[in-house]
Amino acid sequence: MSVSHPIVDIHTHMYPPSYIKLLASRTTVPYIYQPTESDGPDTPDPRLIILASDDDPSRPKALRGRPVDSTYSSFDQKRAFMKRHGISCSVISLANPWLDFLDPGSALTTAQDINNDLERASAENNASPSNDGLKLYAFGCLPLSAPPEDIVSEIRRLKTLKHVKGVIMGTTGLGKGLDDPELDEVYSALASTSTLVFLHPHYGLPDSAFGGPEVVARSGHVLPLALGFPLETTIAVSRMYLAGVFDRHPKLQFLLAHSGGTIPFLAGRIESCVAHEREFIANGGSKQGPHRSIWEVLHSNIYLDAVIYGQPGLKAAIAAAGSVDRVMFGTDHPFFPPLGDEKDSKWLSVESNKGAIDGCLTQEEEAKRKILGGNAVSVLGLDL
Amino acid sequence: MSVSHPIVDIHTHMYPPSYIKLLASRTTVPYIYQPTESDGPDTPDPRLIILASDDDPSRPKALRGRPVDSTYSSFDQKRAFMKRHGISCSVISLANPWLDFLDPGSALTTAQDINNDLERASAENNASPSNDGLKLYAFGCLPLSAPPEDIVSEIRRLKTLKHVKGVIMGTTGLGKGLDDPELDEVYSALASTSTLVFLHPHYGLPDSAFGGPEVVARSGHVLPLALGFPLETTIAVSRMYLAGVFDRHPKLQFLLAHSGGTIPFLAGRIESCVAHEREFIANGGSKQGPHRSIWEVLHSNIYLDAVIYGQPGLKAAIAAAGSVDRVMFGTDHPFFPPLGDEKDSKWLSVESNKGAIDGCLTQEEEAKRKILGGNAVSVLGLDL
Repeated sequence: MSVSHPIVDIHTHMYPPSYIKLLASRTTVPYIYQPTESDGPDTPDPRLIILASDDDPSRPKALRGRPVDSTYSSFDQKRAFMKRHGISCSVISLANPWLDFLDPGSALTTAQDINNDLERASAENNASPSNDGLKLYAFGCLPLSAPPEDIVSEIRRLKTLKHVKGVIMGTTGLGKGLDDPELDEVYSALASTSTLVFLHPHYGLPDSAFGGPEVVARSGHVLPLALGFPLETTIAVSRMYLAGVFDRHPKLQFLLAHSGGTIPFLAGRIESCVAHEREFIANGGSKQGPHRSIWEVLHSNIYLDAVIYGQPGLKAAIAAAGSVDRVMFGTDHPFFPPLGDEKDSKWLSVESNKGAIDGCLTQEEEAKRKILGGNAVSVLGLDL
Repeated sequence: MSVSHPIVDIHTHMYPPSYIKLLASRTTVPYIYQPTESDGPDTPDPRLIILASDDDPSRPKALRGRPVDSTYSSFDQKRAFMKRHGISCSVISLANPWLDFLDPGSALTTAQDINNDLERASAENNASPSNDGLKLYAFGCLPLSAPPEDIVSEIRRLKTLKHVKGVIMGTTGLGKGLDDPELDEVYSALASTSTLVFLHPHYGLPDSAFGGPEVVARSGHVLPLALGFPLETTIAVSRMYLAGVFDRHPKLQFLLAHSGGTIPFLAGRIESCVAHEREFIANGGSKQGPHRSIWEVLHSNIYLDAVIYGQPGLKAAIAAAGSVDRVMFGTDHPFFPPLGDEKDSKWLSVESNKGAIDGCLTQEEEAKRKILGGNAVSVLGLDL
């Protein structure tokens, strides 16, 4: 936690109280279910049901999804978690599914409220004499179901909020994916304001990709979380790349969750398939392919978090990023907590990511410091 | 091509003449379409339509799929390709979709015929004084649509064919995936006969995973080939792992195509999601999870090919394999040929895989030699 070598967590979520209230007011995914006495004598924690696969009608609602305790919304708990793991700064983002589900009429004001909450909480924390030296910043959220001009106006407004250092976004865009030409106006605004986009999955893959819902159900959440999430990111970024989004917007800056899904591992195969695609104009076909190499895009438009839980993945991420300067430590807090009574000890999920950084970069202290915090400080312009 | 440091291609396909004949007799996927004069004045090459997405009814059949020339079935062409790239030995496998589509009644005899063809061609080549020192071996195919006892009898018979060094298999198993308990009898036979299984994708992901058929169509074959193939392998192996197949059959040996799909990159995330899955017995739930760590399975049950077209992926593959001893060079010939007139030059697809090996292991000559051929010689027991 030294000031000269800070540890910055750029992948750490919260549901601020206003968002918890919004979810608790809903009865379809995403929603929070508050168990009542009829659910049993020991009224359990509220349940967060955010994935379609969580909302299994064969189970009582009090057992669907996952328990949502104060870890999700409490800044005190966030700070306690940071202290326990030596994290000096957290760049908080609203957790999935953000505002994807809002009707166009309420999206802008809801986004403004949540972004203002995050700005205020960060400002108050950073100014507080009792903050123990822990700093908070935030990624804002966008009203993507609102008309593009409202999205653009919120992107511009966010630049006036001193503690908001980018935006978090899912893979649906305006509803048709991130390769939707209608997004060009939004991408132009993001690029011209130098707004970093933290791209995060939520929807995973359809159950049919895994062999059907009964196959998925056999292993709890493992297939959707371990594979569905990163594969969703992989597909979304590949679609953007193939559609020439990075050709049209060469200044776009994306930070990809979970070390890019599987993009670092598959970049070579994507490049090879593009080079061998007969339907692309470059090969005598009629379809426009991407102009720039995927490596060039990785080296100039993409940052990767280091949330990959092992050395093999992190090695590929660093190699694909082209430099240790484009990889940043994260925790995915408050997800993947210890399941037993050891909640006050160090979290396995955090330690395995830290351990991978240590293991990949033994003897390279400067590179480790960059990934653990130095890159976040310089890329996001954090004042620590 | 030196005998002391041979280059062995363990991922190289053929459609032997008997298989071409079988495909040409069909009119539904997979099939070969032989254009006629009505397709135009310059009758083009026959077309191979092997993926459901290839069979686009809005296109004339003469333009569906890909041209299939003699490269696919000619041993002379295979040898010319080997010579051009300094490959001294090819372990040939039937290309996808193998015999998955056969009715149970004809599967066993078709498998026997094809396996005998591959054995005979390899034996004849290796005994020929004019073979230029090029050796051929083969992975056999299994009659997976036949009753399990027929599959097991073919596994046993293959051990009597001197040039068959394992089997190639897709991800469907008996029709329900590789985690189907009905496969236990087959896995027992594979393990007890020490038969290496070369696992290869074919079906990819449903179009809906990519955003629908119109999204897929925008980029030719790129999404199904670059992403669908490796993600199919990833899902299939994860399902096997989660269902405890490697726990019940600790001697099973799999060689995964395309460096394991994305398993090397995602292994850490899979491990973390298993450790945090509340529904697994180990965490107080009711479902059986895997007993062994995925790293242990990677280090004792899995080999990876080096068909990954770039250093970042290969670095992850070597790291996840635990040792350079478990990674083996391959080309995916005759797929991904040069698209222009440079068919007699070195293939980009091959050179990028060789270049990745060179780039990852500069200064490590012994490790390079192992991946390029030494591992295949010792693991498969090749006589070069």
